[in-house]
Amino acid sequence: MIAKAHRLAEVKEYYFSTKLREVASLQKEGKPIINIAIGSPDLQPPEAVVTALKESLHLANVHQYQSYQGIPEFRAAVCQFYQKKYQVILNPDTEILPLMGSKEGIMHISMAFLNEGDQVLIPNPGYPTYTSVTKLVGAEPVFYNLSEASQWLPDLDALEQTPLSKVKMMWINYPHMPTGAVADLDYLAQLVSFAKKHQILLVNDNPYSFILNKSPLSILAVKGATHVALELNSLSKTFHMAGWRVGMLVGTPELIKTVLQVKSNMDSGMFLGVQKGAVAALQTPNSWFQEQNKTYEKRRELVWEIFDVLQCTYSKNTAGLFVWGKLPKGADAIEFTNHLLYQKNIFISPGTVFGSQGEGYIRASLCVSVSKLKEVLHRLQTKI
Amino acid sequence: MIAKAHRLAEVKEYYFSTKLREVASLQKEGKPIINIAIGSPDLQPPEAVVTALKESLHLANVHQYQSYQGIPEFRAAVCQFYQKKYQVILNPDTEILPLMGSKEGIMHISMAFLNEGDQVLIPNPGYPTYTSVTKLVGAEPVFYNLSEASQWLPDLDALEQTPLSKVKMMWINYPHMPTGAVADLDYLAQLVSFAKKHQILLVNDNPYSFILNKSPLSILAVKGATHVALELNSLSKTFHMAGWRVGMLVGTPELIKTVLQVKSNMDSGMFLGVQKGAVAALQTPNSWFQEQNKTYEKRRELVWEIFDVLQCTYSKNTAGLFVWGKLPKGADAIEFTNHLLYQKNIFISPGTVFGSQGEGYIRASLCVSVSKLKEVLHRLQTKI
Repeated sequence: MIAKAHRLAEVKEYYFSTKLREVASLQKEGKPIINIAIGSPDLQPPEAVVTALKESLHLANVHQYQSYQGIPEFRAAVCQFYQKKYQVILNPDTEILPLMGSKEGIMHISMAFLNEGDQVLIPNPGYPTYTSVTKLVGAEPVFYNLSEASQWLPDLDALEQTPLSKVKMMWINYPHMPTGAVADLDYLAQLVSFAKKHQILLVNDNPYSFILNKSPLSILAVKGATHVALELNSLSKTFHMAGWRVGMLVGTPELIKTVLQVKSNMDSGMFLGVQKGAVAALQTPNSWFQEQNKTYEKRRELVWEIFDVLQCTYSKNTAGLFVWGKLPKGADAIEFTNHLLYQKNIFISPGTVFGSQGEGYIRASLCVSVSKLKEVLHRLQTKI
Repeated sequence: MIAKAHRLAEVKEYYFSTKLREVASLQKEGKPIINIAIGSPDLQPPEAVVTALKESLHLANVHQYQSYQGIPEFRAAVCQFYQKKYQVILNPDTEILPLMGSKEGIMHISMAFLNEGDQVLIPNPGYPTYTSVTKLVGAEPVFYNLSEASQWLPDLDALEQTPLSKVKMMWINYPHMPTGAVADLDYLAQLVSFAKKHQILLVNDNPYSFILNKSPLSILAVKGATHVALELNSLSKTFHMAGWRVGMLVGTPELIKTVLQVKSNMDSGMFLGVQKGAVAALQTPNSWFQEQNKTYEKRRELVWEIFDVLQCTYSKNTAGLFVWGKLPKGADAIEFTNHLLYQKNIFISPGTVFGSQGEGYIRASLCVSVSKLKEVLHRLQTKI
């Protein structure tokens, strides 16, 4: 048998991939599992999105190859969206790169800037893909610890004391997954200064801006952030379009061009129909966002109640699709969640999926209907 | 400014990317350019494809994340397609990996199997992406020359005389782009034996099987090909769905699993609507293929006439979307095609886009309407 590349040796199967197989087999056995672990939006996108896709199917060129840079209309819509939502002015011709989901952007950016042996600062806890992609391109993950004590923000003073000469890139992700922590503009400015001082490429992965968040922020709103900062954004969570695979990378032309050099060798432009749907999404009026957030608020109230029953503590000052709960002292995250799965048929994420700093925590998703959350509450309040 | 990764130093912008910018600016100046260079199918997919996409938009989970492995229905459809068209039996659960276009598969496979310094056998002439991706993952392209004398098939005796110990992978692509050469089952079997002997992963990139080809063949039809062979396939050319980005990788479970390990860290599953459209495409009756080929036959007749006027020679025993023409003796491909572009407003590919062995050749696309091809003929027959 042909041997795998060495780069795969350290990349394990994603926790959820294994665990969801187990959950599926429990369901097959007839267990009434309620999954509150996964952040796959269950709400519907704005109606105009589906209409725009349908209408595009009559266009003469809809089935043909599209440009890597997307249709001008899509880039213009991103541009207007960034101006309206983040007060950030972008050049639609040079500062926006459409992506088939922001996840692929993590690979493109890493391929574009990382050499073997380069170090990458990665949040712990954080999205596991930053780590696996860093390893896949032969670079070295260096974790920076986030903790409740520092509001899940990187401790820049501590980072300054560590060797940084080999660090080429730093992943940040505010609003933060899994904790829901937010960073304000002052804090983002400190991060940019840090990145400038050490010539580190600072990439903000920003898909949770519009979920339960009063002040959506882009890293590019920081003065002078260009030249060291890039931002990934996505329609997946914002518009409940995770399956569509639409994201974008925004930043200064030179950096975007470098990433495009990788992307143009890896795939092709996005399906025109999907781009047309994305344009419609980006033009959605503010009232729609308010409606979605009302739904998420109701769900979050229930998750808070669930966490109260579980004797977990949590911050109410968070944003995004998840609630992050601190387990009763001494509890082990995997044991705790396995117990819930096997005894109560409730599947919830152990915090350790996101790194060692997630020990003692659990994460619940808001992509679950009120009726299901009520059923979870009922099960927890009922003795078996 | 943050420096690019070293891997980008050797990857140039794609010829067509630069040249199409020039063509666009000539068009802006008012030049009536006819583009017969590019293989972007202009015909329509089967009607059922669009219907299936539209109908899927009402499904409850259509906007949500999809599995990396695609819906079972998609894999079953690939399975039936391979059985019906190639007489190859696949296991739908373990031997099929859906791709967002087969182009991304080139990267996934290379990431999955190549280490830095590994050598990769690449056809010259051939699709330029094999080379750029090989360089991007830090492996070394080793070109094998194809020529008219050997019907554009690799000379295996000559290859046996070269050092092969560092060769990990070999790209083949039959029906071959740009030449249209076909390989029969006996020849594919020889390639498999060669790969087995040297423990080389043999990957057949097979998107042109159904265009003007009497005997579509899969490398997996060769007995014992599993364990050393993988095949990329695509709906782009077969069903005129290049913009949809649907392809697949097929092969033995262990190899597929290794590629999935890369892919699951790079992107997510394909949009459900696109998968539903793809299922409909794969179930298209034979009569549809015959209709499409009639159109391509008419176009090819005209391209042959055009080549006659240009005093180019060509083989009539070819398959695929292109006609490959040998220029009059001594003609330089770039000069020849630039002359046509600037004097006659006809854009055609120089053979050198596909490697040094393409010198003295040009490539014309069949993705051009009969009326445009007639206009090309008319321009060539008219003195300026």
